[in-house]
Amino acid sequence: MVIVMQPGASEERVQAVIERLVEKGFDVHRSTGVERTVLGAIGSKNGVDFRDFELLEGVQEVIRITEPYKLAGRTFQKENSQIKAGGVVIGGPEVVLMAGPCSVESRTQIKTIAKLVKEAGAKVLRGGAFKPRTSPYSFQGLGEEGLKYLREAADAFGLLTVSEIMDRMDIPIAIRYIDIIQIGARNMQNFTLLRELGNLNKPILLKRGMAATIDELLMAAEYVMSGGNRQVILCERGIRTFENATRNTLDISAIPVVKKKSHLPIIADPSHGTGLRDHVAPMARAAVAAGADGLLIEVHPEPDKALSDGAQSLYPEQFTGLVRELRIVAEAIGRKI
Amino acid sequence: MVIVMQPGASEERVQAVIERLVEKGFDVHRSTGVERTVLGAIGSKNGVDFRDFELLEGVQEVIRITEPYKLAGRTFQKENSQIKAGGVVIGGPEVVLMAGPCSVESRTQIKTIAKLVKEAGAKVLRGGAFKPRTSPYSFQGLGEEGLKYLREAADAFGLLTVSEIMDRMDIPIAIRYIDIIQIGARNMQNFTLLRELGNLNKPILLKRGMAATIDELLMAAEYVMSGGNRQVILCERGIRTFENATRNTLDISAIPVVKKKSHLPIIADPSHGTGLRDHVAPMARAAVAAGADGLLIEVHPEPDKALSDGAQSLYPEQFTGLVRELRIVAEAIGRKI
Amino acid sequence: MVIVMQPGASEERVQAVIERLVEKGFDVHRSTGVERTVLGAIGSKNGVDFRDFELLEGVQEVIRITEPYKLAGRTFQKENSQIKAGGVVIGGPEVVLMAGPCSVESRTQIKTIAKLVKEAGAKVLRGGAFKPRTSPYSFQGLGEEGLKYLREAADAFGLLTVSEIMDRMDIPIAIRYIDIIQIGARNMQNFTLLRELGNLNKPILLKRGMAATIDELLMAAEYVMSGGNRQVILCERGIRTFENATRNTLDISAIPVVKKKSHLPIIADPSHGTGLRDHVAPMARAAVAAGADGLLIEVHPEPDKALSDGAQSLYPEQFTGLVRELRIVAEAIGRKI
Amino acid sequence: MVIVMQPGASEERVQAVIERLVEKGFDVHRSTGVERTVLGAIGSKNGVDFRDFELLEGVQEVIRITEPYKLAGRTFQKENSQIKAGGVVIGGPEVVLMAGPCSVESRTQIKTIAKLVKEAGAKVLRGGAFKPRTSPYSFQGLGEEGLKYLREAADAFGLLTVSEIMDRMDIPIAIRYIDIIQIGARNMQNFTLLRELGNLNKPILLKRGMAATIDELLMAAEYVMSGGNRQVILCERGIRTFENATRNTLDISAIPVVKKKSHLPIIADPSHGTGLRDHVAPMARAAVAAGADGLLIEVHPEPDKALSDGAQSLYPEQFTGLVRELRIVAEAIGRKI
Repeated sequence: MVIVMQPGASEERVQAVIERLVEKGFDVHRSTGVERTVLGAIGSKNGVDFRDFELLEGVQEVIRITEPYKLAGRTFQKENSQIKAGGVVIGGPEVVLMAGPCSVESRTQIKTIAKLVKEAGAKVLRGGAFKPRTSPYSFQGLGEEGLKYLREAADAFGLLTVSEIMDRMDIPIAIRYIDIIQIGARNMQNFTLLRELGNLNKPILLKRGMAATIDELLMAAEYVMSGGNRQVILCERGIRTFENATRNTLDISAIPVVKKKSHLPIIADPSHGTGLRDHVAPMARAAVAAGADGLLIEVHPEPDKALSDGAQSLYPEQFTGLVRELRIVAEAIGRKI
Repeated sequence: MVIVMQPGASEERVQAVIERLVEKGFDVHRSTGVERTVLGAIGSKNGVDFRDFELLEGVQEVIRITEPYKLAGRTFQKENSQIKAGGVVIGGPEVVLMAGPCSVESRTQIKTIAKLVKEAGAKVLRGGAFKPRTSPYSFQGLGEEGLKYLREAADAFGLLTVSEIMDRMDIPIAIRYIDIIQIGARNMQNFTLLRELGNLNKPILLKRGMAATIDELLMAAEYVMSGGNRQVILCERGIRTFENATRNTLDISAIPVVKKKSHLPIIADPSHGTGLRDHVAPMARAAVAAGADGLLIEVHPEPDKALSDGAQSLYPEQFTGLVRELRIVAEAIGRKI
Repeated sequence: MVIVMQPGASEERVQAVIERLVEKGFDVHRSTGVERTVLGAIGSKNGVDFRDFELLEGVQEVIRITEPYKLAGRTFQKENSQIKAGGVVIGGPEVVLMAGPCSVESRTQIKTIAKLVKEAGAKVLRGGAFKPRTSPYSFQGLGEEGLKYLREAADAFGLLTVSEIMDRMDIPIAIRYIDIIQIGARNMQNFTLLRELGNLNKPILLKRGMAATIDELLMAAEYVMSGGNRQVILCERGIRTFENATRNTLDISAIPVVKKKSHLPIIADPSHGTGLRDHVAPMARAAVAAGADGLLIEVHPEPDKALSDGAQSLYPEQFTGLVRELRIVAEAIGRKI
Repeated sequence: MVIVMQPGASEERVQAVIERLVEKGFDVHRSTGVERTVLGAIGSKNGVDFRDFELLEGVQEVIRITEPYKLAGRTFQKENSQIKAGGVVIGGPEVVLMAGPCSVESRTQIKTIAKLVKEAGAKVLRGGAFKPRTSPYSFQGLGEEGLKYLREAADAFGLLTVSEIMDRMDIPIAIRYIDIIQIGARNMQNFTLLRELGNLNKPILLKRGMAATIDELLMAAEYVMSGGNRQVILCERGIRTFENATRNTLDISAIPVVKKKSHLPIIADPSHGTGLRDHVAPMARAAVAAGADGLLIEVHPEPDKALSDGAQSLYPEQFTGLVRELRIVAEAIGRKI
């Protein structure tokens, strides 16, 4: 923590601040300039709230020195983490495609899609069974039955599965069917759930909350990792801004920023990020060009008949065409699909 | 739903859209102007995604006609809901004060505060036992033990209790100690939890998420209400914006907006909304002046020693002074404290 | 500036940063802790970009110590500025009401309103003559003719005038008719214009830009003040957020924040801040309760026939009723209207 | 405009709304459903404020049917506009690179950079002479002298020039030296300036304001175009959001959205969009992958010594490497550099 005193703050006030810092267990380094005094406080313990110092007399500004995320940050692990699931590596040279419908709707539907996305180049099959819906009157997913269909379809075509759970009570069911457990944006700070995931030995796909800063996303990952499970994949899926031409604003710059701050892999979800099919392909290309380690894309054989999010699902042939473009983009930065 | 066709869209395209609407079960009303055609579609069923129509050829814009929140909205209930808990009425002529520490820290601490806030005019004692903390390394609350102390302290001074729960598995414990169950901003769209709350017969204090629109807040209330529990109290506690001089931006205008759209009571939390003690009093007065039905305020006998959020907690004498001012403000609009 | 080195950064890298700081004219104070080294750099000259240091090897974080706004900040002027115009004092114990139509539409219209707002208690008459409109096809104001009508009406009832100018070429005309020159939100960072205003001897009403932080608002005031004109009145009029139930989000907390950082008076504009008549009164009361030094409110004798912004203009009787309430709210905090 | 009546609104109220619409010159089409009545109003004139209807009794919601930007929109011009300047075409198959320093600092500096960026593949030389700076104490640019150096350097290497002006009084000077006149984000809604640009016969590079929606950006273009100058190039340069890991959030999705709504070319400025050199290359690639028609990139021979924005300027060799990657990305979508 660094404390900047007001210009002309009396010696008495400076001393009062120093005493308080010492009391809280800090080592204090004082810099006295012509105009003002700056105090560096090192060795902070958790539980100190920097705002307490902001309220002391004579203090102009208090600056928190961000604690490195001990486990999620790059400080103590320089090299990229590679998360392995089945034979697939996320965070390595390959850009991993995860694709499938928003919701698993039937055994036939998910099987049809599994075949399509496999042929196009996907490695992981997505499909929702527990759906977080804004309205209580919307389709809420098939639950365990949906997960069974998802698993069957994935196995039939040699794919992995990724699917969302919404509550820690869903975990026992989930681990029987899901290879990569997805935590949705609305649950990114469901700390009770995050703690439970820390006890698993499964990759977790952690989506950024709509109002979450990148630092908060990394702190949410830290929750999982501090429990022992280091297999966290981050996912940018759009933040909420004043612009409403798109459902959310897909924050592509989060990709290079995360790469600099953390060793964890980060993928992007251009389907939820834009909310409209027309914009999915450009944003998918943009994410790969910016360095994303993978993509999560909604594809549906008949988007017009989808029970949820059909408008943002690609037609199968659109997905195939997109993968062709993505291969070239990936090459431009020395990666492959 | 209203569909605006592009100027000059061919008759064929207009017909294609009409057919699609009819197929989805809509009654269609066509308005053909000189420049363009507008289609009104009435009788929508849930499960229709308006974006599907946005993608049809010749369509310029699709406008969703917001479904009234059947239970939370004012359309079908004109008069204000009054939520009763013990002898206290929230949503009536009285502005109800709920006050106490961020976290219950000890039996003595909560008892000291209970006495203070009671004398100053509060009716409900707040105090956290299950704490959602951004960092896994911060103080996480005393759990059930904290709730016991809270209950004891409240009973000793004739106060009600309000406290947050974070997971549906906390409910059985919570209902033994808590009069008003608080759902925090981060859980506003924890739909699994909301559903469970719908089965209770207890007032729910539902805080607005940091990135939640007012419509989404009302939809979250609808989740609880659709399960049978109509006792929902809304709470504005600050939204996330680009401004970082305050922790959040307390959206005071949400108060009159909610009053117009919904019959549910709405209170404000100026402590979390601003994050700094100095700004709590002005914002508390502002909320009451704007028509809030109550306030949730953090007070601590020794804020400097608080285990969490001390910087935003009022000193006891500040709280007492504030209540004096609030009484006059409430009178200005024909209410009382 | 404070530079936090990465844990384990080599001595060589620390020295490289120190050399660079010295080269740029800083005094450097080094704090070496067990985990990491922190460098305090004092005596910065303008023109140093703190991001340059962020890019050096071994640097984890660079923290800018905000330069106090030399003229707008409280550091060098503790007591509140009182801006005098005619016999009216803005920033003193009185809360000053400025009211009138969005646009001056005719000699009769502005005269009718002048009488109304004077009787209700306003001291300043507002009315736009140069209108910034989002669409080039909207009504753009009456220009100089409008200013003449405004002046006449104000003089007839002993009111001052406030009106917006949009370009430095409007200044010569403006100073003949306007007592308080208003700079709109869209021009808050029109630096060319701000510089010219610095040469005048007239109060300037500076509105906060829709995406401007409070610090940027104060820096914009600094532009005017650094030219010699210290008579700046700040105005909160709503910021842009994701919430679209209101036109903008009136950031009431900006009022106490500005009061803490600056000695300049701050008023609020609840008409533009909410965009809808129904919400003007609650937000006007909230602003006064939070400590605003004045209000800028749109009133129109026939809002339905207004050429601009009728929907957010109060009916005369609404304005009169509001002033009654505001008087009580002002009293609650020891002020008067 | 579409007006949705409240369920159960009386026939009297419906008639009152219809009368009001007719009075304002609308053709009204009524759709009466079981639950509610919807009124379509066609033929609106400018100057009707849809909020006026929102305030009528019995009205639940008023929906504005966005007027197509007559000149900037795709409705009346399906094919892409190609803006020609010298031999360069912006909006054609080629992705046009515009590069150079933030500010022109000296004759030598700009000449050195001109050579570098020309060799790397740029077609247009950027360099600021009139600088909008947040602080009045920062370097404000060399003015006309800077423009002379820019012109000389561009001519020496067969490049075009792009540079910002801040005021309509700068136009006479600007047109002597600048091929593409840049309007900065802070002036996007300086309507006085926009009008003047409408009278020129020069391409205008119009940057999106930090809080401007895409619709507002297109309306600003409409201002210029309605004056007769159709040569507008749009530029995405980052919007303001709650995320502060980057200076702004570069809204890559604005690129496909603009492409759908408008025929005008759109380029991206990843330097201002991110504010840090490390993130410029990934975001430049992302912008091209998403379909940008060009890039505006800051390059400096010695970024450490730049008088402004050095931290976001690329080293010459970084720029050269980036162009190599961009060529491959452009190919992936059938374009070239």
